[in-house]
Amino acid sequence: MTRTALHLQPMRRRAVKLLVAAFGLAAATGLALTSGNATAQIAKNVAAKSPWGPADEIGTLNMMTDGTRFDVLKQVAGGKVYDLSVDLFIGMPICCGAFGDPTFQIFMTHAPARDTSTEVLSYSGDAVNMYTHTGTHIDALNHFGLHGKIWNEVSTEQALGVRGWSKSGIDKYPPIIARGVLIDVAKSKGMVPLPKSYAITVADLKDALKQQGTTLQPGDVVLVRTGLMTLWPDQTKYSLLDESGLSLEAAQWLVEDQKAMLLGADCLGVESLPSTDPKNFVPVHSYLLVEKGVSLMEAMWLEDLAKDQVYEFLFIASPLKFRGGTASPIRPLAIGIQRK
Amino acid sequence: MTRTALHLQPMRRRAVKLLVAAFGLAAATGLALTSGNATAQIAKNVAAKSPWGPADEIGTLNMMTDGTRFDVLKQVAGGKVYDLSVDLFIGMPICCGAFGDPTFQIFMTHAPARDTSTEVLSYSGDAVNMYTHTGTHIDALNHFGLHGKIWNEVSTEQALGVRGWSKSGIDKYPPIIARGVLIDVAKSKGMVPLPKSYAITVADLKDALKQQGTTLQPGDVVLVRTGLMTLWPDQTKYSLLDESGLSLEAAQWLVEDQKAMLLGADCLGVESLPSTDPKNFVPVHSYLLVEKGVSLMEAMWLEDLAKDQVYEFLFIASPLKFRGGTASPIRPLAIGIQRK
Amino acid sequence: MTRTALHLQPMRRRAVKLLVAAFGLAAATGLALTSGNATAQIAKNVAAKSPWGPADEIGTLNMMTDGTRFDVLKQVAGGKVYDLSVDLFIGMPICCGAFGDPTFQIFMTHAPARDTSTEVLSYSGDAVNMYTHTGTHIDALNHFGLHGKIWNEVSTEQALGVRGWSKSGIDKYPPIIARGVLIDVAKSKGMVPLPKSYAITVADLKDALKQQGTTLQPGDVVLVRTGLMTLWPDQTKYSLLDESGLSLEAAQWLVEDQKAMLLGADCLGVESLPSTDPKNFVPVHSYLLVEKGVSLMEAMWLEDLAKDQVYEFLFIASPLKFRGGTASPIRPLAIGIQRK
Amino acid sequence: MTRTALHLQPMRRRAVKLLVAAFGLAAATGLALTSGNATAQIAKNVAAKSPWGPADEIGTLNMMTDGTRFDVLKQVAGGKVYDLSVDLFIGMPICCGAFGDPTFQIFMTHAPARDTSTEVLSYSGDAVNMYTHTGTHIDALNHFGLHGKIWNEVSTEQALGVRGWSKSGIDKYPPIIARGVLIDVAKSKGMVPLPKSYAITVADLKDALKQQGTTLQPGDVVLVRTGLMTLWPDQTKYSLLDESGLSLEAAQWLVEDQKAMLLGADCLGVESLPSTDPKNFVPVHSYLLVEKGVSLMEAMWLEDLAKDQVYEFLFIASPLKFRGGTASPIRPLAIGIQRK
Repeated sequence: MTRTALHLQPMRRRAVKLLVAAFGLAAATGLALTSGNATAQIAKNVAAKSPWGPADEIGTLNMMTDGTRFDVLKQVAGGKVYDLSVDLFIGMPICCGAFGDPTFQIFMTHAPARDTSTEVLSYSGDAVNMYTHTGTHIDALNHFGLHGKIWNEVSTEQALGVRGWSKSGIDKYPPIIARGVLIDVAKSKGMVPLPKSYAITVADLKDALKQQGTTLQPGDVVLVRTGLMTLWPDQTKYSLLDESGLSLEAAQWLVEDQKAMLLGADCLGVESLPSTDPKNFVPVHSYLLVEKGVSLMEAMWLEDLAKDQVYEFLFIASPLKFRGGTASPIRPLAIGIQRK
Repeated sequence: MTRTALHLQPMRRRAVKLLVAAFGLAAATGLALTSGNATAQIAKNVAAKSPWGPADEIGTLNMMTDGTRFDVLKQVAGGKVYDLSVDLFIGMPICCGAFGDPTFQIFMTHAPARDTSTEVLSYSGDAVNMYTHTGTHIDALNHFGLHGKIWNEVSTEQALGVRGWSKSGIDKYPPIIARGVLIDVAKSKGMVPLPKSYAITVADLKDALKQQGTTLQPGDVVLVRTGLMTLWPDQTKYSLLDESGLSLEAAQWLVEDQKAMLLGADCLGVESLPSTDPKNFVPVHSYLLVEKGVSLMEAMWLEDLAKDQVYEFLFIASPLKFRGGTASPIRPLAIGIQRK
Repeated sequence: MTRTALHLQPMRRRAVKLLVAAFGLAAATGLALTSGNATAQIAKNVAAKSPWGPADEIGTLNMMTDGTRFDVLKQVAGGKVYDLSVDLFIGMPICCGAFGDPTFQIFMTHAPARDTSTEVLSYSGDAVNMYTHTGTHIDALNHFGLHGKIWNEVSTEQALGVRGWSKSGIDKYPPIIARGVLIDVAKSKGMVPLPKSYAITVADLKDALKQQGTTLQPGDVVLVRTGLMTLWPDQTKYSLLDESGLSLEAAQWLVEDQKAMLLGADCLGVESLPSTDPKNFVPVHSYLLVEKGVSLMEAMWLEDLAKDQVYEFLFIASPLKFRGGTASPIRPLAIGIQRK
Repeated sequence: MTRTALHLQPMRRRAVKLLVAAFGLAAATGLALTSGNATAQIAKNVAAKSPWGPADEIGTLNMMTDGTRFDVLKQVAGGKVYDLSVDLFIGMPICCGAFGDPTFQIFMTHAPARDTSTEVLSYSGDAVNMYTHTGTHIDALNHFGLHGKIWNEVSTEQALGVRGWSKSGIDKYPPIIARGVLIDVAKSKGMVPLPKSYAITVADLKDALKQQGTTLQPGDVVLVRTGLMTLWPDQTKYSLLDESGLSLEAAQWLVEDQKAMLLGADCLGVESLPSTDPKNFVPVHSYLLVEKGVSLMEAMWLEDLAKDQVYEFLFIASPLKFRGGTASPIRPLAIGIQRK
């Protein structure tokens, strides 16, 4: 942890309170939700046109082809499957409870009679009420916009109805089958979990990759371990508001230099929070989703991969196709591959 | 379609009305929900002990091992992925609307301001309310019981709380990675879709397999095509109450003779409805879930596999781990394998 | 029923189908949702300024004062209370199921243990999911707008957030205590219920009032009986789409000539549907809510009042204060008063 | 506040934590949820038979007749109406969030188009998800039971289905029109609000009544002011877990000596919490609901009545008839009466 980062801590604490107070349930300006001045303004804060054309709604997921999928499938080295998701249960931490979003609820709609002598067949059924960003989940590109426009310069007037966007919803997402890489920053830095609000640097990523002996490849699904899942599911400790995560520079390095296709982490927001950009309270989200067309996966369970030191794997995730949805809970899988 | 089956049709129609009227929201006796007399009483109508021991909650999914998974992964013949699921959207057909279960709902919880000039960053979020058996989904073993007991003789007193079962919930299910087989009965019989309430026979399955040149193997995920998805999503036509599907004998042949691990279909209930067993309105469900520990997948999208005549494949499904849940929506995937 | 009205029937039937098909979940143009040509264009189809000033959010409910309330309270003639509401239950008819709104759902969140020997105290609790326009309810002035503006010329840009309006929500509504009058049109015309889509005329209202010996007074809550509650709760018969109700002229006479403060009826939409105005599918709603600031109460239980021929009464209703809500279920009460 | 009460404070604090931890979502024994020893065991902890006969489901609300209602209606002294309820909004305090119950949610299901140039008529609609015990509400007699039986010795086997009880649900409740009395204990004791967990004694009630010059009458609706609404809606301060409220003795005096029909308060649970009875974590609830058939109203807004010193009034409340429901939000009204 750098000196600068440490120095920012108290300012960030205050910012957390501001964030919750100011955010409320409505739109929020960047001003109230950040602390300090941005050191490097590497993001442009405007929605980008997609290099995959005006009809594109999925961004970098276009990097997947039959060829890339077959290539990684052929490398599978065994049949052990890693489950990268958490359970969904009443009382679980949710990312946005502070913003008024609903908690996870499951209710029975049918159950066996109390007096079971009266029925041969007993029927149990249940329903869920949940924020789409609950548990391990993937954010769709319509989750954030800049100046009213989402990825590929789609405006609210064009594509936002009451029940959701008609563009870049999770229903448009293909199944994800690609090479996955774990970068265990928590282990590499010897801090499990990383300190509150710690912002992972490019050097941190390089150090961890070197220590692991892993090389990134274009099109990779890159999963970053902060170690925060060791605090799960304690709602008071596993919290969005002061979590460690990627710095904007680290996200930029992964996407622009290393050509990562998809990013994920074991914290609730992937990025270090609160933000240090006074104009944007989630600069990594907006950079990735709105400027680069890169989706994010959050609240991932990376503990088993880390324990077994499985750093390269076949990654599989199948988001539910909620029409227009800004996210879907997922249960991603990993299977170790031969290291090339 | 046999003469007997045709003869049963009018009786079945009446039974459908009875079913909806009688079921209501409460427990339902088998009597009111079926028509005719059972021709063969091949099911015992009592919950079975698991051969995998007293702690077992997942039944035949125990057949999967690192070995079986690796075996099928190694056979993958390309990178084309088939998506076996439908979209989730407002107004979609649901299996149990007639029984009072909630329809699928998605709502926005955050959206960009109407006056977009005021905000740099715009946040879109949404929540869903849904029956767990919505869209393409997998039923957990606790979905049905017989005489108050579910799979492995677990009683309501032991394991049923208000929010759900503590045993055999979908949260206990492993990811499913196995060899999958499509049996295209609709194509083989030249009726797409099969007639209303048509009960697929053992001979139908054998004929289709022969025509396809497919051989079943122990541990297979067997997907049966009735062609009903050609009527999707017309709520008036794609309906649980008079759907074609497996006869009890056909289910028994798949599970007991062919050692299938998991069954699925493109209709809402896998089995032919309404039931002809006067004591049980879903005899195939109770046979599979409660007596044999075999789970079911419903409302599967099999049209693309059928069109491409892909009959053998790597099958992957990852149910969400709703704690205690009787089902989960899934988005299963298929990738063609080399035929052995 | 006039000849013209009868003649319109077949056209209206077709319009019903159009209405459901076209409405969908999104905005709907008036064009697709109506039939025939408007005979009299008495409504202006623009949002009006309130005569009670720029801050007004409740329209004609401003007519209530301590004086008007005390006046009617003093006239109470006994202690018999009439309950003007229906039960809320799973499977009940809802006004807008055809438009994709959620059905009424109640779920238990706590219940006594199955094995009751283990607990002294047993706790039962439940939660509801419901459209705010469920059962007997009152519409707030923000329920409809014209050209993007609601009552008092409030625009979406000014006052519409994601979770609702900040203006004219049901949370702003005062309790309603006023003189109420029942106009039993169904009885007066000798048709219980009135024919499908029948549009009540001014003459119908005058005839019924004369037959009852009732005189309207400024500030009255006027409840119109179509007799449709005799079909409740049959979802196939008690339906919004072809219901009898007020014609626009009749609504205009009640509000402009008779100075009614609040209107209600025993059907789902108060007005005759489908609309005959090709530009507006609910012209009585928009006339009342957006042009005149008059709220509406729907699905009222008027059978007991009608049976006892109680035509003048103390009317009491207490909407729940859902912040921003476009409606609230209510349980209005009536107590007979001395006829002045 | 007595010495004993003060002495119990630290013990109670610990108990609060235990309560939340132990309660979870399942059944809870009284043991874990209380602190200290019961000083007086005035409750029997068994469900009582109703003096109104075996079919009774509403308990003391049977005390209302046309005569009692007319009697109080005739005493009305003016037209000023007091609203005794709070708003329902996202982020509001709820009684049972600690036990996993859902928070209040409202969502739009229809809204005007973003581009308002395209539509004449704009439609706004919304839906709510809420615990039935949200905001100002009334508990039905089926809310608690003792040894598996609710009021009138009704057992779970007889009357508890999945979606709720068929007995003593809020749908069975009549509208409530009766004489109401405010007892302003907070004012009388000069502590607004009363201290945390303060248990109001019989002497406190007598002192306040004397100071107000109020005499209770059989059949009264008795509302007790703790002053806790001065902390509303701060979720961290307005909390069920350590709230002041009635002692069991005070409740007993109101019901058995003074023949009160219905009790209410401005806190979330009416009674002082946590409980001092080691066998029962809400002894006043179970005494009132299960042993005496007396309903409770919670989270009432009594500040306006208190400010105007209106101690005797016409009380009106109209619970929504959720079939089987354990409670309903209400918006009760008060209108001052002449003091007899």
